Amino acid sequence: MEKVLVFGHKNPDTDTICSALAYAYLKQQIGMDAEAVRLGEVNAETQFALEYFGVAAPRFIETAATETNAVILVDHNERQQSVSDIDQVKVLEVIDHHRIANFETSDPLYYRAEPVGCTATILLKIFKEKGIAVPKEIAGLMLSAIISDSLLFKSPTCTDEDVAAAKELAAVAEVDADVYGLDMLKAGASLGDKTAAQLIAIDAKEFPMGSFKVEVAQVNAIDVNEVLAKKAELEEAISATIEQKGLDLFLLAITDILNSNSTALALGAQTSAVEEAFNVTLENGVALLEGVVSRKKQIVPVLTEVFVAKN
Amino acid sequence: MEKVLVFGHKNPDTDTICSALAYAYLKQQIGMDAEAVRLGEVNAETQFALEYFGVAAPRFIETAATETNAVILVDHNERQQSVSDIDQVKVLEVIDHHRIANFETSDPLYYRAEPVGCTATILLKIFKEKGIAVPKEIAGLMLSAIISDSLLFKSPTCTDEDVAAAKELAAVAEVDADVYGLDMLKAGASLGDKTAAQLIAIDAKEFPMGSFKVEVAQVNAIDVNEVLAKKAELEEAISATIEQKGLDLFLLAITDILNSNSTALALGAQTSAVEEAFNVTLENGVALLEGVVSRKKQIVPVLTEVFVAKN
Repeated sequence: MEKVLVFGHKNPDTDTICSALAYAYLKQQIGMDAEAVRLGEVNAETQFALEYFGVAAPRFIETAATETNAVILVDHNERQQSVSDIDQVKVLEVIDHHRIANFETSDPLYYRAEPVGCTATILLKIFKEKGIAVPKEIAGLMLSAIISDSLLFKSPTCTDEDVAAAKELAAVAEVDADVYGLDMLKAGASLGDKTAAQLIAIDAKEFPMGSFKVEVAQVNAIDVNEVLAKKAELEEAISATIEQKGLDLFLLAITDILNSNSTALALGAQTSAVEEAFNVTLENGVALLEGVVSRKKQIVPVLTEVFVAKN
Repeated sequence: MEKVLVFGHKNPDTDTICSALAYAYLKQQIGMDAEAVRLGEVNAETQFALEYFGVAAPRFIETAATETNAVILVDHNERQQSVSDIDQVKVLEVIDHHRIANFETSDPLYYRAEPVGCTATILLKIFKEKGIAVPKEIAGLMLSAIISDSLLFKSPTCTDEDVAAAKELAAVAEVDADVYGLDMLKAGASLGDKTAAQLIAIDAKEFPMGSFKVEVAQVNAIDVNEVLAKKAELEEAISATIEQKGLDLFLLAITDILNSNSTALALGAQTSAVEEAFNVTLENGVALLEGVVSRKKQIVPVLTEVFVAKN
């Protein structure tokens, strides 16, 4: 049987990397020649999790069609977030927890999306349905994914199912979810040694909204002011990205993981959409978004609504 | 809680009607105010199944947003096959077994597609996962859906899972699947009293293929020549549809349910795509498609490939 590549989105986060590893493991157990790969650099938070549980990072790929015709997507479905040659391979399966958009196949496939906080939560169900035990290190990675996506269970995207799955996985992984989780989040929020260009690319995703092109980047921080101290460099890096990609808006959300707020830094021709969406006034491009920690649930839908109304 | 409408595609077939009824039943058991509805006339085959198992047809609706904001789609996802105001309601869930295209949401949802022959096969899994027993009459409807979509297990879309589900459902419904199934298919293939316009609309679906608009209709027949005897009227009705909808191609597949072949009748500016896709020569718009019984697996993908290559 042909090799199947399993991967998450570009600018990989902990859920994307860990879910690719976990699902490839599951598929291997049922006889598939599956390999987890990644589409970008492993971030500091994910690196912490991989090292803690002693698992090697997946192999990096630039393109998929050069080595296989069959892929499985985890933690994403939108074409622009996937491998660059996604149109040249057959998508066998998708396991995801995001909205569905810019995704099209010519054949039926296995697609499983659930409105939960993390792909790993769905994967745990599939492990159970298939009767496959989750090994300790895979459980640790899946727990890390849930902690990351839920900001240690504080995000509004976090459901009871995510909390229950995390509890179960923490027992298998033999860690205290809260202690381990805060250490992992802090490892990811150590931003001091990053350049502005690196900061805005840590977790950036592009979204078509109506007829507009919008990129929303998010960084977790212990100290938001430490990030804002680099505002001039950040603006320069963001402006370069806007020009290079032809964006109408770039929104950087600097998320305070201790106080569960985000500070927005917005640039581009359509910054007024941010003001409208969140009912705030940008001062020098900056505004506090009270209680906003989830890009998926609290940023993308409201911004999309504003842009679609402009069409 | 708000009422949730559960429905399949326009030009409903047996899977669409029966899966809507079965899934609405399941949702009611877990406390949802769910109602199965339909987007078009019940066909003769489905009517046979409903009468045999003593279940009333779902209520017909023209629009959804006039009565609720929340819907569940079964047996389809493409916008043009759904209720006319699908963009004005929130899709809570999709249970389907088709390709994914022209489907987009702004929020995460529960989406479950599997590459099996029938939606009802997936529903049986969900009944089991939720621990809900399938009542006799619902089992009969779900069995009817599988028999219909698989042409009594002869279609290449039919998987081992469909056969196993049908066997299980036949036992609950207390019928012999082969005997009941042939009676049901024959009831649906009694085309004698239908006008040409009715014939081409029994099971017609529109597909965007590349930049082209294509409609593929399918009728089951015991005697294909009986249908072709009305060729002039069929062509007139098809031409009217092409003009009305601005189609580039209309393909009517007359499927011989006893010999598992289809006879194609193609009209429109792009009939050459049919010749290219199936490597046949149309004579007066007609060609035999050997072994072709499945629109989804044997018609739509090959036609799509030809049209996409034209772009």
